[in-house]
Amino acid sequence: MATLSITGGQVLLPDGTVTRADVLIDQEGGEILEVGPDLAGEETLDASGGLVTPGFVNGHSHVAMTLLRGYADDKPLESWLQEDIWPAEGELTAEDVRVGAELGLLEMIKGGTTAFADMYFEMPEIVDAVDRAGLRARLGHGVVTVVKDDAGAREDLETSLEFAREYDGAANGRISTAFMPHSLTTVGREYLEEFVPKAREAGVPIHYHANETVDEVTPIVEDRGVRPLAYAAELGMLEPEDFVAHGVHVDESEIGLLAEAGTGVVHCPASNMKLASGMAPVQRMLEAGVTVGLGTDGAASNNDLSMLDEARDAAMIGKLAAEDASAVPAERIVEMLTHRTADAIGLESGRLEEGVPADLAVIDLEEPHLTPAHDLVSQLAYAAAASDVRHTICDGQVLMRDREVLTLEEDAVLERASEAAESLVARAEE
Amino acid sequence: MATLSITGGQVLLPDGTVTRADVLIDQEGGEILEVGPDLAGEETLDASGGLVTPGFVNGHSHVAMTLLRGYADDKPLESWLQEDIWPAEGELTAEDVRVGAELGLLEMIKGGTTAFADMYFEMPEIVDAVDRAGLRARLGHGVVTVVKDDAGAREDLETSLEFAREYDGAANGRISTAFMPHSLTTVGREYLEEFVPKAREAGVPIHYHANETVDEVTPIVEDRGVRPLAYAAELGMLEPEDFVAHGVHVDESEIGLLAEAGTGVVHCPASNMKLASGMAPVQRMLEAGVTVGLGTDGAASNNDLSMLDEARDAAMIGKLAAEDASAVPAERIVEMLTHRTADAIGLESGRLEEGVPADLAVIDLEEPHLTPAHDLVSQLAYAAAASDVRHTICDGQVLMRDREVLTLEEDAVLERASEAAESLVARAEE
Repeated sequence: MATLSITGGQVLLPDGTVTRADVLIDQEGGEILEVGPDLAGEETLDASGGLVTPGFVNGHSHVAMTLLRGYADDKPLESWLQEDIWPAEGELTAEDVRVGAELGLLEMIKGGTTAFADMYFEMPEIVDAVDRAGLRARLGHGVVTVVKDDAGAREDLETSLEFAREYDGAANGRISTAFMPHSLTTVGREYLEEFVPKAREAGVPIHYHANETVDEVTPIVEDRGVRPLAYAAELGMLEPEDFVAHGVHVDESEIGLLAEAGTGVVHCPASNMKLASGMAPVQRMLEAGVTVGLGTDGAASNNDLSMLDEARDAAMIGKLAAEDASAVPAERIVEMLTHRTADAIGLESGRLEEGVPADLAVIDLEEPHLTPAHDLVSQLAYAAAASDVRHTICDGQVLMRDREVLTLEEDAVLERASEAAESLVARAEE
Repeated sequence: MATLSITGGQVLLPDGTVTRADVLIDQEGGEILEVGPDLAGEETLDASGGLVTPGFVNGHSHVAMTLLRGYADDKPLESWLQEDIWPAEGELTAEDVRVGAELGLLEMIKGGTTAFADMYFEMPEIVDAVDRAGLRARLGHGVVTVVKDDAGAREDLETSLEFAREYDGAANGRISTAFMPHSLTTVGREYLEEFVPKAREAGVPIHYHANETVDEVTPIVEDRGVRPLAYAAELGMLEPEDFVAHGVHVDESEIGLLAEAGTGVVHCPASNMKLASGMAPVQRMLEAGVTVGLGTDGAASNNDLSMLDEARDAAMIGKLAAEDASAVPAERIVEMLTHRTADAIGLESGRLEEGVPADLAVIDLEEPHLTPAHDLVSQLAYAAAASDVRHTICDGQVLMRDREVLTLEEDAVLERASEAAESLVARAEE
């Protein structure tokens, strides 16, 4: 049994307490063997002056969109999608998706993220990139039917279902999948009625955008006579294994449905602010018992994939939305950064304890912005940054050691991504 | 004449355009001599793969509060101040203020900030720290009269005035001063009526908190029958050289007063969010022609002093407040990060052009989160982080080279600050 010990640091336990301890990992099994004093493994990672935390979990992303980072800022969701993003995405090749995914995975590893959920297309390319990069992921092919004829719509739906069936358990079990209709307004009711039961038969969860903007609520209320999440429940899309992205404009009845169903909500504060979509009632959802996770959304609406930025944003906007500075406090934020999001998207990750997957990050605390050390949970929620991550470990493997990413060649990824992005935009603007 | 050239990078010009150029600096005069191709100085700073920007300007801070970073989070302004911050501040010694200031200055230099405005006490200690650290600053002694008897109030007011008179032009001209009554509610009217004219005689600007929370508005409306900034105008505290912090709850009439008077407003988005104070109408103020700057406020309500974090926060909350994703766009944000804030607080800084003070930062662009390079202004507003700053230059002197701060000894500052913070909290909780 190959073992790795992470020594000399403090550790963040699942109950939110911080204590001085080492962590011993079984690298073959990919699990944490022990958390305690003076643990020696065959290999050692130095965590002195650092905090060992669960790896961060990014509950909603479109990782290949890194190629469009900064391409079209300062526009509202609808015109941004229709005038800029979709035309550019229309030009994306499978190779572009692979290159963009590599860039996003590199950024996530450098920011301490070890698990994520992603909705995009050309998904086998992303599977391949995740396999090589070493992260854990729940992946799915995103389906939009409203711009397609019936044959095109069915093909897209079959692709999503087929991807979910075929790739579940890939990358040595690090990859799980989901059926991913884009949203309740961009996929027709007849298709949802037909394909949701098929997803259930296949045993895959369902992930979709819901209640992101008012424009995603009003048409459903007008056409169906019920709120979007009541419509989702009618369609059988509100099961414990399912999770929705955003949940900005949810009313009390919908919060109740989410809590009762056990369906996760992935809150994406930066994207919701940047697109002026609104403020999700996170404190209310937490109080009601909804499993609220955190996600970056795509880099084009954020503009980075740092979960530590997202944590700070969630605390900030959570207080504004509740009009209460004690709302969404640092302890809840650190849970959302780790195990709450893992629970929302159905991955076993986000906890630092014996017998669970060894998905970890080591945060360097010896920086001016993290001094003094009155409260390390506060530091993680409000002051730590992606650049403070010293090591990243997923499934027992070291993905980054002393800021050097071991599974992807950083210079080559940046160069390929820059070239692909330039060519993509040139094609889109032709 | 000692000269320094910053070579190989792209430069951000005052009009917001980016071009490939070198920058030649007269180190003795502290000025930019030339911006153009192939400039050779006696010394060279490498900016290849980087963006040379004006140094960032932090328009409102309490820099020594770094000692209280993370000490009391998740509380609203009034109880946070009264239950936690003021009792702890009551225990601060002059030595603590110096140590806390050094920590804050170190953090600012590492984040590319070269000029700032600060309101605190034991100000000669901060003068000394700024002198040694090499930044540019507008400093003032903050006065609260409501908790003091008349003699104590007068002593505090005289201290503020005397400090402003004595230290203006200190540190070889890098330090300017202001008279700083804490706010319109914490300093009695009779004192403002007496001391504002004295500040005018002394030729120093006035800086104060205004309209930060609803609790700073309502009592004035009730007691005086006018909005706070109309009250300030009556008292002669709304002159072009004056600047207020926050301006969250300003109505249209007050926006008009600010625009007409030319009084600057320093927007502190992170602090306003963290304390749930509200959302300043930044887009409205910009449209009305108000000089809106940006500030971090103290580290206890932020929790860092990164102006790049503040920039991103301002763009985000600005859009939410305006309910418009096109509001407070990246170009405005980058102006607020640099010359708009310098203008608001009355310092000559924040521009990269010939004949102005050489206050600069070099941002390393070769990072995953800053790739690809579709739009460098967007990268600066939305994706760049403090850790991306490679070099920091103020008044022609290199304060940080390749992430090594040259004017402060980082390890010693962190150690002293940790010790001082621990001792301070122990005393406060006795």
